[in-house]
Amino acid sequence: MTSADKNNPDTSTAQNSSADLGVTVPKGFSAAAVTAGIKPSGKSDMALIRNDGPDAIAAAMFTRNQVTAAPVRYTQAHNDGTFRAVVVNSGNANACNGAQGDKDAKATAERVAEALGCQPGDVAVCSTGLIGDVLPMDKVLAGVDELAGNLDQSIAAGNAAARAIMTTDLVSKEAVYHGDGWSIGAMGKGVGMMAPSLATMLVFITTDAHLPSSAMAHQALASATPTTFDCIDIDGATSTNDTVLLMASGASGVTPDAEEFNAAIHQVCLDIGMQLQADAEGVTKRVSITVGGAETDEAAQTAARVIGRDNLFKCAMFGSDPNWGRVLAAVGMAPVKMNPAGISVSFNGHPVCINSTGAPGARTVDLSGADIAVEVDLGVGEGRATVWTTDLSYSYVEINSEYST
Amino acid sequence: MTSADKNNPDTSTAQNSSADLGVTVPKGFSAAAVTAGIKPSGKSDMALIRNDGPDAIAAAMFTRNQVTAAPVRYTQAHNDGTFRAVVVNSGNANACNGAQGDKDAKATAERVAEALGCQPGDVAVCSTGLIGDVLPMDKVLAGVDELAGNLDQSIAAGNAAARAIMTTDLVSKEAVYHGDGWSIGAMGKGVGMMAPSLATMLVFITTDAHLPSSAMAHQALASATPTTFDCIDIDGATSTNDTVLLMASGASGVTPDAEEFNAAIHQVCLDIGMQLQADAEGVTKRVSITVGGAETDEAAQTAARVIGRDNLFKCAMFGSDPNWGRVLAAVGMAPVKMNPAGISVSFNGHPVCINSTGAPGARTVDLSGADIAVEVDLGVGEGRATVWTTDLSYSYVEINSEYST
Repeated sequence: MTSADKNNPDTSTAQNSSADLGVTVPKGFSAAAVTAGIKPSGKSDMALIRNDGPDAIAAAMFTRNQVTAAPVRYTQAHNDGTFRAVVVNSGNANACNGAQGDKDAKATAERVAEALGCQPGDVAVCSTGLIGDVLPMDKVLAGVDELAGNLDQSIAAGNAAARAIMTTDLVSKEAVYHGDGWSIGAMGKGVGMMAPSLATMLVFITTDAHLPSSAMAHQALASATPTTFDCIDIDGATSTNDTVLLMASGASGVTPDAEEFNAAIHQVCLDIGMQLQADAEGVTKRVSITVGGAETDEAAQTAARVIGRDNLFKCAMFGSDPNWGRVLAAVGMAPVKMNPAGISVSFNGHPVCINSTGAPGARTVDLSGADIAVEVDLGVGEGRATVWTTDLSYSYVEINSEYST
Repeated sequence: MTSADKNNPDTSTAQNSSADLGVTVPKGFSAAAVTAGIKPSGKSDMALIRNDGPDAIAAAMFTRNQVTAAPVRYTQAHNDGTFRAVVVNSGNANACNGAQGDKDAKATAERVAEALGCQPGDVAVCSTGLIGDVLPMDKVLAGVDELAGNLDQSIAAGNAAARAIMTTDLVSKEAVYHGDGWSIGAMGKGVGMMAPSLATMLVFITTDAHLPSSAMAHQALASATPTTFDCIDIDGATSTNDTVLLMASGASGVTPDAEEFNAAIHQVCLDIGMQLQADAEGVTKRVSITVGGAETDEAAQTAARVIGRDNLFKCAMFGSDPNWGRVLAAVGMAPVKMNPAGISVSFNGHPVCINSTGAPGARTVDLSGADIAVEVDLGVGEGRATVWTTDLSYSYVEINSEYST
């Protein structure tokens, strides 16, 4: 089972107090967090996860943004099915820093490798925060040394690591799955610049399953992300630093059935994904948009994404305003086949538009709750997909107009 | 010359007091405005423009949204190079009203035709306002009768018509061009749902030029819109009702040179376009985004549009925050060729990013003024384009979260 009940996303914010969540739940993983001094706030800002083995299998997904951060380039270059550790800093994205950024990402990995006694190519590096400032490497390298000295297999160490990767996240995000004799743990961060295009934000998944090959890890991750992280679209903005990393220690000695493993990874990705949605910048409404009646599932997802990115629709959701005309206006611009006279829309199960015409009572549907389910039928086929987004609130504008200054 | 100085968009809001602007400046046009009672505010909400001839040449551009309003469908169906009049209502878009909407658009045109003694197919119909409410036809038809009785060739009548088509517009939008013995007048409305995809919002252009054929009118309009209205992208949302209509009366007896005519129409479209940008919902910054160094002009426009639609970038502009990393993160998702390590950005002429790396002083560039010019170079070619957008402010959220309720 997962930690969060998908029918009641409020439970997803309660995991901080839970002791049985996170990346150190599976056997064979140590974690640590420190305050290296990168964040002006003085909060913890570096984390390290070590795979204590016996296996060191890994799979990773990265941003599709053409402008990639230096740590993404470093980790991509060494993404050969094996990682023994991942080091993460928050407060600075190490993106758009030219050759200096690449040099700093490499130096960070080298220091971790030295401290842990492995190769630099066995260390994944991730950064998140402001784009365009050079990393304070004195603080980062001192932080690495301290992290290496603090590694611990306790659940609390994993919880601390989850807090150390937060930026404007209000809560840390962790999940767990228990199989028969094996388990999966996960942590993630991300609140803005959130429109994955393969993978999103920083998400770290650990398992003590013994996987026969990295292909099984890759297969599970690659099949989970398209219908979980890739279906979250908060603001249409895809980060330069997005990374999802799965590491398998094999410490349980159990090799799960591939189908169960894939389903479990999917469940954990969805769990973390729903926590990301629930903590998105300025969120007051969690909005799911399901499009059916499309020609294909891909067309349905495209249409759902177009609605989810429409600022006018998102403002209406903020105002609890059942202004369904904005759904029609938005979806009409989706580059997919639809029957313009045969579109139907419902809000929270109440039909508000039938055959592209207002339904009785449409203007009085109550959208005052925190969760809004929008269903749209395009009237041309069987394709279906769901995208998760949020409303567009004053707080979103406030947070994002004051980020770097 | 046009009414607004493009180097100082503030002048564009001063046109209300100017007596020499609008659709009745050219000879051969009458206009009228009435309060039919469609708007709850009690402000004027219907306008009529009649081409008094001798010619009745017309050209029109419409929204590319697949979901079109009934008046758009009606006008498209009769768009044969001739319109004698256009009737407009604000306060109700007559969109997504099914067969009733089509019936109401047709009945409106028929009533106008009856009152003016022309054919219903010679009447263009436009509506703007809330989507999904059926038109109050008793008020609309009474309004048509009153409009027909009030038609007047005075400048004041054109000014009144420009005010009657406003929705959340704070100022009316009018323009004029004076040729040698002939002239062009124009009015437009539009503040949100503004991301034209051929034409945008409601814009009405009149001229007393004697055009040898409707092909000349169409040619001028079709060549002007791609670099004027099509380059405004306030919120990525394309209306169901967008229409640009050009009518030529021939009353001056002068046939302008086609090149001059095209340039004049372009200038008037740009003038109205800049007024639309300056009055966009919640605007506090007018932002121009020029992308150069792209493979083609089209690629440059695509990249500029991706930046202009990025909410994180727009929030930074609202905060006068020179957070250039958001420009890089946004443009990196544009589906065009770029050199990810060779992108440069300037704000108001100050380089803030050179070869994808921060420039000295980048964080202290002053963006406190109302106009921000962003220049981006992708480093791969000679393609170049400009898109005009605005910031994303608290007011935008306020206006759009309280629109229908």
